[in-house]
Amino acid sequence: RVTDAPMASVPAAFVVMKFDQEGNVTSFEKKKTELCQELSLQARDLRFQHSTSLTARNNCIILRMASLKAIVTPESLLVLDFRGLGLERWLVLELAPQLASQTHSLPFEFRALEAILQHKVNTLQTRLNEVEPVILDVLESLVDPKILSADRSKLHVLLQNSKSLSELETDIKVFKDSLLKILDEDEIIEELCLTKWTDPRVFEESSLGIDHAEEMELLLENYYMQAEELGNKTRELKGLIDDSESVIFINLDSHRNVMMRLNLQLTMGSFSLTLFGLIGVAFGMNLTSCFEEDPRIFWLVTGFMFLGSGLIWRRLLSFLGRHLEPSVPPLIPPVWKRNLKTSDVKAGVR
Amino acid sequence: RVTDAPMASVPAAFVVMKFDQEGNVTSFEKKKTELCQELSLQARDLRFQHSTSLTARNNCIILRMASLKAIVTPESLLVLDFRGLGLERWLVLELAPQLASQTHSLPFEFRALEAILQHKVNTLQTRLNEVEPVILDVLESLVDPKILSADRSKLHVLLQNSKSLSELETDIKVFKDSLLKILDEDEIIEELCLTKWTDPRVFEESSLGIDHAEEMELLLENYYMQAEELGNKTRELKGLIDDSESVIFINLDSHRNVMMRLNLQLTMGSFSLTLFGLIGVAFGMNLTSCFEEDPRIFWLVTGFMFLGSGLIWRRLLSFLGRHLEPSVPPLIPPVWKRNLKTSDVKAGVR
Amino acid sequence: RVTDAPMASVPAAFVVMKFDQEGNVTSFEKKKTELCQELSLQARDLRFQHSTSLTARNNCIILRMASLKAIVTPESLLVLDFRGLGLERWLVLELAPQLASQTHSLPFEFRALEAILQHKVNTLQTRLNEVEPVILDVLESLVDPKILSADRSKLHVLLQNSKSLSELETDIKVFKDSLLKILDEDEIIEELCLTKWTDPRVFEESSLGIDHAEEMELLLENYYMQAEELGNKTRELKGLIDDSESVIFINLDSHRNVMMRLNLQLTMGSFSLTLFGLIGVAFGMNLTSCFEEDPRIFWLVTGFMFLGSGLIWRRLLSFLGRHLEPSVPPLIPPVWKRNLKTSDVKAGVR
Amino acid sequence: RVTDAPMASVPAAFVVMKFDQEGNVTSFEKKKTELCQELSLQARDLRFQHSTSLTARNNCIILRMASLKAIVTPESLLVLDFRGLGLERWLVLELAPQLASQTHSLPFEFRALEAILQHKVNTLQTRLNEVEPVILDVLESLVDPKILSADRSKLHVLLQNSKSLSELETDIKVFKDSLLKILDEDEIIEELCLTKWTDPRVFEESSLGIDHAEEMELLLENYYMQAEELGNKTRELKGLIDDSESVIFINLDSHRNVMMRLNLQLTMGSFSLTLFGLIGVAFGMNLTSCFEEDPRIFWLVTGFMFLGSGLIWRRLLSFLGRHLEPSVPPLIPPVWKRNLKTSDVKAGVR
Amino acid sequence: RVTDAPMASVPAAFVVMKFDQEGNVTSFEKKKTELCQELSLQARDLRFQHSTSLTARNNCIILRMASLKAIVTPESLLVLDFRGLGLERWLVLELAPQLASQTHSLPFEFRALEAILQHKVNTLQTRLNEVEPVILDVLESLVDPKILSADRSKLHVLLQNSKSLSELETDIKVFKDSLLKILDEDEIIEELCLTKWTDPRVFEESSLGIDHAEEMELLLENYYMQAEELGNKTRELKGLIDDSESVIFINLDSHRNVMMRLNLQLTMGSFSLTLFGLIGVAFGMNLTSCFEEDPRIFWLVTGFMFLGSGLIWRRLLSFLGRHLEPSVPPLIPPVWKRNLKTSDVKAGVR
Repeated sequence: RVTDAPMASVPAAFVVMKFDQEGNVTSFEKKKTELCQELSLQARDLRFQHSTSLTARNNCIILRMASLKAIVTPESLLVLDFRGLGLERWLVLELAPQLASQTHSLPFEFRALEAILQHKVNTLQTRLNEVEPVILDVLESLVDPKILSADRSKLHVLLQNSKSLSELETDIKVFKDSLLKILDEDEIIEELCLTKWTDPRVFEESSLGIDHAEEMELLLENYYMQAEELGNKTRELKGLIDDSESVIFINLDSHRNVMMRLNLQLTMGSFSLTLFGLIGVAFGMNLTSCFEEDPRIFWLVTGFMFLGSGLIWRRLLSFLGRHLEPSVPPLIPPVWKRNLKTSDVKAGVR
Repeated sequence: RVTDAPMASVPAAFVVMKFDQEGNVTSFEKKKTELCQELSLQARDLRFQHSTSLTARNNCIILRMASLKAIVTPESLLVLDFRGLGLERWLVLELAPQLASQTHSLPFEFRALEAILQHKVNTLQTRLNEVEPVILDVLESLVDPKILSADRSKLHVLLQNSKSLSELETDIKVFKDSLLKILDEDEIIEELCLTKWTDPRVFEESSLGIDHAEEMELLLENYYMQAEELGNKTRELKGLIDDSESVIFINLDSHRNVMMRLNLQLTMGSFSLTLFGLIGVAFGMNLTSCFEEDPRIFWLVTGFMFLGSGLIWRRLLSFLGRHLEPSVPPLIPPVWKRNLKTSDVKAGVR
Repeated sequence: RVTDAPMASVPAAFVVMKFDQEGNVTSFEKKKTELCQELSLQARDLRFQHSTSLTARNNCIILRMASLKAIVTPESLLVLDFRGLGLERWLVLELAPQLASQTHSLPFEFRALEAILQHKVNTLQTRLNEVEPVILDVLESLVDPKILSADRSKLHVLLQNSKSLSELETDIKVFKDSLLKILDEDEIIEELCLTKWTDPRVFEESSLGIDHAEEMELLLENYYMQAEELGNKTRELKGLIDDSESVIFINLDSHRNVMMRLNLQLTMGSFSLTLFGLIGVAFGMNLTSCFEEDPRIFWLVTGFMFLGSGLIWRRLLSFLGRHLEPSVPPLIPPVWKRNLKTSDVKAGVR
Repeated sequence: RVTDAPMASVPAAFVVMKFDQEGNVTSFEKKKTELCQELSLQARDLRFQHSTSLTARNNCIILRMASLKAIVTPESLLVLDFRGLGLERWLVLELAPQLASQTHSLPFEFRALEAILQHKVNTLQTRLNEVEPVILDVLESLVDPKILSADRSKLHVLLQNSKSLSELETDIKVFKDSLLKILDEDEIIEELCLTKWTDPRVFEESSLGIDHAEEMELLLENYYMQAEELGNKTRELKGLIDDSESVIFINLDSHRNVMMRLNLQLTMGSFSLTLFGLIGVAFGMNLTSCFEEDPRIFWLVTGFMFLGSGLIWRRLLSFLGRHLEPSVPPLIPPVWKRNLKTSDVKAGVR
Repeated sequence: RVTDAPMASVPAAFVVMKFDQEGNVTSFEKKKTELCQELSLQARDLRFQHSTSLTARNNCIILRMASLKAIVTPESLLVLDFRGLGLERWLVLELAPQLASQTHSLPFEFRALEAILQHKVNTLQTRLNEVEPVILDVLESLVDPKILSADRSKLHVLLQNSKSLSELETDIKVFKDSLLKILDEDEIIEELCLTKWTDPRVFEESSLGIDHAEEMELLLENYYMQAEELGNKTRELKGLIDDSESVIFINLDSHRNVMMRLNLQLTMGSFSLTLFGLIGVAFGMNLTSCFEEDPRIFWLVTGFMFLGSGLIWRRLLSFLGRHLEPSVPPLIPPVWKRNLKTSDVKAGVR
């Protein structure tokens, strides 16, 4: 039953990977209730119901970024249920050294948060990098003016990738919204500065006139703006798909019109031939026309047939030419040339 | 008359199902005026004029979620006019046990509100789950590049489901707006915490450092975000329908162009045959051409007819080929390749 | 001249219909200046320049809803210039009894405002009710998959009604905005509660713990939400028109493709017949082919003509079949099936 | 060089037309620096860099509305650089009398501001009045169901006017934004009430309980709402163009389908005739068929040819009829009828 | 690896061009750490991670506008890493004199900021000036009603330029957002007025009743509005592309319909000729028809063939004419004429 699903799906125990300030990494299993007691959290705080969340609870930062669930305490970073999600490589090879590096003068929770948000932004960037060149390639070949009909397997690829793009756009939006919600409320930013509350000494020592909350705001804003740039890119890409589709349609329509004109010209030819061929058919009848014996008549009629149909065809073609170019009087002004000048005038006035 | 309708449609009596804290369920009928007096409410509070509403009045929470109308008091939950709406199963089998469960350390009104909002979100999710696979199936078969013409019964199904999707989108929006209105005003959240006002003792006892209002905000925010996720899904689905329609149009246009080229090629063949057939017709005339007696002439003319029309056809076909591929000079740069590089440069600079 | 128009168009005298608290209705003509003096208003307050407005001035509520212009005082409602606008029926038959009814415990200005706003919402609802079934009917018949070409008179009706729908949408938006402007400013709401200022006694007597301003906010909010629901309906209807148009285009395109394939198949047949008919034409020439005397040759050639064209036709048809179904390798995965599973996974994780 | 342009384009001297409270109009030339000193303004205040601006500086209101640049002081209105812009007629014939009229009880700056804003709104209205009927006319003739192909000169006119409409929309938006910026900040409104600061006496005398700032807010809000109405109109007009274009496309597509069906029917006829004509061609060959002598055979074969092709044609036509109406089973429910009922039910419940 | 890229890409040393108040320009290389110490900045302040940023740090303004990175101190302007970006010309020829000019009475940081923002706006304007005429030219030639098929190389150019336009739109939006963020927070504006904090004396001396923060707000607002105008232009241009595409489609469709009608008329002619040609074919058969000897019969049948096909063609043509103009009853009212009148009425009422 759906109602109970969110509660039922919370496992009784977490597989935890723990990173401490010195760069030590340990991995163990722990019951959910024990973890809650240890960190003085409510059971409900560890439900991770939403795909993207970032909250401060009782001097812990609890966050989830898609498959990555983590708890940041002032001394350590706990990554929960990390197995089978393709995260192990990143956790061991990148996250551990990054957290241990002492180049940062900032407290541990800043380093942990920065590493995780950077990972999230990188993931989004990677997804965009996968989708973008495929879409550009497909569009490049689809808007090729030489093609008469769109390659349908490419349309298939385009559709799949534009679906991925929509999903990426949603994820970027959700990520941005979750950061924006924090940036809009100064209290939450204060709560995220764990060290400020637990170890004020460290704070005073390390600070070179730095305000923790301001520093946290800068950090979050940085990733917000990176997500914004990704969002702008996806938007541009969507616009490009739309523009290209218009061009594809104009291309296909143009091809069709060209073919239709050729077809029409040939139909005119066939018509002329049929019309004058009728004379030949008439003379082919087993009826007496009194011209049977004169050999000149044969050449006359044959010549008339060919010349006549040729002339009629030519006439029809020139009629078509006139019909399609309806001699718009040159009085009609161009749409924009005139306006360009008036905008020049405006620019001059300004 | 329309004017009086809202007032007239309020029935004089409600069929009430009452759930108390111990899990007892009773069902009875009660006059509207009596119910108002009992709960010290105004008659107008029980009009339920809007399809989705959630308000606090005189220490009661009055809410309506589509067909579900309910009043939450600190001790009990009253569901009104529940008959004939398909709610009975859920009320008896799910709501009753959920309200009676003692796992929650939170007061009764939290449990009641959570159950009802979860029911609403589940209903919305169920509607999406019904619509989504149908739409995906129909689109999957419509964008199939092999089809020459869209199956119209599938278009019919698509139209019906995209109408349902629009209605679902509106309902999600209305639900989100009604939650957002409360989340934006701290006073209303305070009013929703009924126990805080009626039984401060319970509040102090049960609380493990929990603030009722904050807890209520978390609860409402949770369902707001679930609705947001549903909203994102419907938006993506609408985008997918649009993208697929573009692909369907390109597919249909491509098919048409391919058929038109074939048609044109055949028209060219027919034209050639008609042109050279005219020679045959000419010689078929009952006129004296002086070649009648020479048997070689027959083969010559026949051969000329077939070869000539073949040659002309070939010429026309190659003309068509050249005409449709207008030898765009290879100087024109591709649209995006160049830009990709500049964006690489940008990425490097950053 | 346009500049002076707003001032010139204000008539020197108003035709006034006055409703008092006891349900008495009187109708008289009054000079604009006299009316201003009587109510201590400025001349400019009675200009009614905007199609929808609702303001409080000097203990009067001055409002205009399209053609209905009214002034609410604590004791009476004045409707101005009501003639020739189709309002008389409503004024006499509905408004008068509604204002006189004593079931409301609220002061007169609430009753008057409620009646007028309800009338406005009803008017909007009526317009939607007129437009909606016509649009649904027209769309229903236009998306009919059996039709080859859209019925143009129905397109005409659709265009007219979608224009009406746009105008209705604007009017709903303007109405919503004018209410929202008031709801956003508590001071204006206070000013609208006329009785609170003129007759505090009535206020204290009638009030059963009711706050006038809060009551007024509820009243306005109620009509705001009704307008919001109407707005949602019009938006859905517009979306439905768009979706239907896409379906109509796909339908028309599909029909065209089907006809084009038939046409192409026939062109193939005609081509085959012309090709082999050329043999017949050749033998019909008045030239000596040496086969003239053998009766078997006649049947041979005739049979060859018919069989040959038949075979060639069949070959062309199968070529067409293969050409249009370009044997996409079954390796290409379906677009959504795969994604459905990943979303299942997601749902499970959550 | 672009950088210096804004500074360079500021002329060293202004041609000024001065209107004072008594209705006297004088026109003179004045150096920019002198004017600045006289009014105690900065040089930069008189640069008029933006096409629409309205600011208060040192007890002057400096405003620009497109080509109209003006400075309002408590005693006079200075219009700058008014020549060659088509403003003279309005300045002399309308603005002067309007400023001199004593019907207004409000100070001079109110009258001046009202006259200028009214002029701006009138200009915008005039532009809409020019564009609207042309667009409606063109659309009316383009959606005419009888036309087979759109008149291209009308498309040209439509494109020109929808460009003008976009520009008008931008100008309305810019005008609205510049008013909204003032309406959002009470301080700026206060600053605009020049008389309040210079001549408090006049203020107290003239005021009949009028607050200057409130009066100014009303004045600005009035023009804001007039601009809003114009904006709504342009938006509706844009929507109408979009809707009409859809109808034009459906019309053109329908015409094409009708012609294609006719074409297909004729192709069917030609095919039948060609098929049975082949029999005639066969008998026309100079080969012995042994039927040559029997006169009945002639009529038999001729009759067979005509009747056969007629029958085959009829058969093909009925096949076409069945093919295009694919006997959708009547089980498929209509899309909306059903939904209408459910919405009725909803309405009833409400 | 992506994670480390932002840090790795920060060079160890900057190439710096320094402009001081007297107009002296010096260029040197400096280690990043030295620069930080000198200006008392954090290393992280000089990372320039976002393409557009403008912040105040420790009495310096640090800004980046695309490739231009600069630090403004109260006495000097430092431009970093300026080589190879096409900035040298502007730096030496324009920026230096502009900073040295003493016409400004405002402190140095105002001059520096103004010069850089003006440069940014000019860059954006230049990009628009490059894109706009190309797009207008291409559209002008594409909407030409005489063209039967769109020139595909022009479509290519259009696509490239509309991509550039999208990128420009994004950049304008990013620039506007970065200014708006500052304009929304008065504290940041105060921080940007460097001289106010370092040299209050200069402030008091130079000020003629000028408030620094207000002056800074005006400066930023000025460039915000210039960017807004550019944004409006790009939006209009995008709208124009959309409108033109619709017109192109209508044009292509119209051409197609015209050609299709011509084609259909010729098909009708060919059909008539084939039908009556069958008579000729029949008489051409080597079968005895008993009319062989009468010379009048030849002329009779020939005449019948030509006249008959002519008559049938004429009949078909008139049928086509009636079929395509489906005699819509004149009762259907025009769509807008009627509405025009009602809006007239409205205008009159107002």
